[in-house]
Amino acid sequence: MGYYCGIDLGGTNIKAGIVDGEGKLLNKLSIKTRAERSMEEIIHDMGKLASDAIKDAGLDVKDIECIGIGSPGTPDNDEGLLVYSSNLPFNKAPMRKLIREVVDLPVYIDNDANCAAMAEAVAGAAKGAKDSVTITLGTGVGAGVIVNGRIFSGFNQAGSEFGHTVLVSGGVQCGCGRKGCFEQYASATALARMTREAAEANPDSLLNKVKEDFGEWNAQIAFVAMKQGDKVAAQVVDSYTDYLADGLANAINAFMPEILVVGGGVCNEGDPLLIPMREKTMSRPYFGPGVAKTRIELAQMGNDAGIVGAAMMGKSCVDDGKNGK
Amino acid sequence: MGYYCGIDLGGTNIKAGIVDGEGKLLNKLSIKTRAERSMEEIIHDMGKLASDAIKDAGLDVKDIECIGIGSPGTPDNDEGLLVYSSNLPFNKAPMRKLIREVVDLPVYIDNDANCAAMAEAVAGAAKGAKDSVTITLGTGVGAGVIVNGRIFSGFNQAGSEFGHTVLVSGGVQCGCGRKGCFEQYASATALARMTREAAEANPDSLLNKVKEDFGEWNAQIAFVAMKQGDKVAAQVVDSYTDYLADGLANAINAFMPEILVVGGGVCNEGDPLLIPMREKTMSRPYFGPGVAKTRIELAQMGNDAGIVGAAMMGKSCVDDGKNGK
Repeated sequence: MGYYCGIDLGGTNIKAGIVDGEGKLLNKLSIKTRAERSMEEIIHDMGKLASDAIKDAGLDVKDIECIGIGSPGTPDNDEGLLVYSSNLPFNKAPMRKLIREVVDLPVYIDNDANCAAMAEAVAGAAKGAKDSVTITLGTGVGAGVIVNGRIFSGFNQAGSEFGHTVLVSGGVQCGCGRKGCFEQYASATALARMTREAAEANPDSLLNKVKEDFGEWNAQIAFVAMKQGDKVAAQVVDSYTDYLADGLANAINAFMPEILVVGGGVCNEGDPLLIPMREKTMSRPYFGPGVAKTRIELAQMGNDAGIVGAAMMGKSCVDDGKNGK
Repeated sequence: MGYYCGIDLGGTNIKAGIVDGEGKLLNKLSIKTRAERSMEEIIHDMGKLASDAIKDAGLDVKDIECIGIGSPGTPDNDEGLLVYSSNLPFNKAPMRKLIREVVDLPVYIDNDANCAAMAEAVAGAAKGAKDSVTITLGTGVGAGVIVNGRIFSGFNQAGSEFGHTVLVSGGVQCGCGRKGCFEQYASATALARMTREAAEANPDSLLNKVKEDFGEWNAQIAFVAMKQGDKVAAQVVDSYTDYLADGLANAINAFMPEILVVGGGVCNEGDPLLIPMREKTMSRPYFGPGVAKTRIELAQMGNDAGIVGAAMMGKSCVDDGKNGK
């Protein structure tokens, strides 16, 4: 006893590993998702991978408290279902039931962004804080909210979709149907779009030259060109960090977390991103005189966030006595 | 035992009343705040009013479990302080200590918008829902978030300042220092401003005539002129409800509450406001297929929300065993 299995389900890979009660990852295994397969086949493989991970760690099923699953989409952790996922063939998928046919352990399910926030809260940048929010800047903008050490996802377990709060009313069309979502101004995809638009408007900008090296527009080009002294690139970064800071300040005002964790590949740019992001963000929230301020920290869990967070989400359910069978 | 005293502290009036365990208000008393006085004098009067309310209800101090205070600003309910309030002379004001010099009962303090949300959750529009958000459209936009039957105000008790999330990046200057806050597009003040701007741009609009009857720009004029067939007024209402719905949909995506309660004087306009507000809001949040949807309800507690919510906030602290002495 005392160990937890975490499964990180993605559109490309399924990862699983064993985690101790403090959030330390013992091992991890990975297989391809092959999302074109049936729901039953994918879930069966998830159970098999969990079983393999337990053996690989030198443990037995009886050493494991539960299996936690982090998945894209909206879970129903009470019923053990994945209600819906936009890029996997799941529609009220009976994950708990099917996994338990392979490994007889309690199974808990939550959203992947929520699990990432749980990983940071237990073992990463928000360790020790009861309330934290983790924002991940990737293809989209993921958000996970931890309140009193527990994932807060609303009455329907569909939250928080903070990436889909409108920041620029009437702005860029978002895949969710709204216009001007935070995601459309703060994701890596958004930065790549802003870079391309600025380059097209300024044919002499170094942005166009740097893009040739990369082959396609991405979130790194603006930073590379800025370091080479390109003013248009500096304007792109300034504009991007301005929008980003507005959205982060919104998250602070909405949730007032002790720690706001920011992660995702864009953060690898280091100080040229982080310094303006922190300075702009911290100048904006609504803290009255004498009121404690949120701290902004970089995500620490990296690629292990999914497995560790899923396992620790499972642990929190076990600790709360939730039914996983 | 079994009764709770609620104090609703405002810039103009101090109200107090006795509330039973179900949120039913037995009586209420009111005095002027006279905010130009010292902190000590105001708090002494709050204690005196609580004492009077207990007697007025035919009860004795021993019948009362605690005193709950709803105040503008940011509380420190652990230490029994009001840390800060923008329009009252309070700076780390020792409310618990000073109230207890007048009435020897446990004292709990929270923000007034949070208490209003608690009142709706216990006895109003969100009764029976574990998770709810109450948005009040007044001079500003107040927000209170209830999670698992408890006020959620973040690690510093300063939240939720959802009225100060930017909805229109770079938009109208807000008193909080940011530009384009939800409050600047959805408050009664904002609607009055939008009405004035539309009237100035359209001198022939009925808006100008209706304004003469009222004497000054307010949030009712657009609705009155729209009912008389004025197209500019209809555009103002359409634009206002569009921004309002964007902010409400943001609150849903952020918190995924079972019930979103909307209150404030603007709601008295009835269907011409409520029908477009509901339709526009509900078309926007990020609910996947099969995922339960938030319901939107009108606030029910009216002017009693402050007293009832303060008392029920106090009850929740007593129930949780929080120290109020």
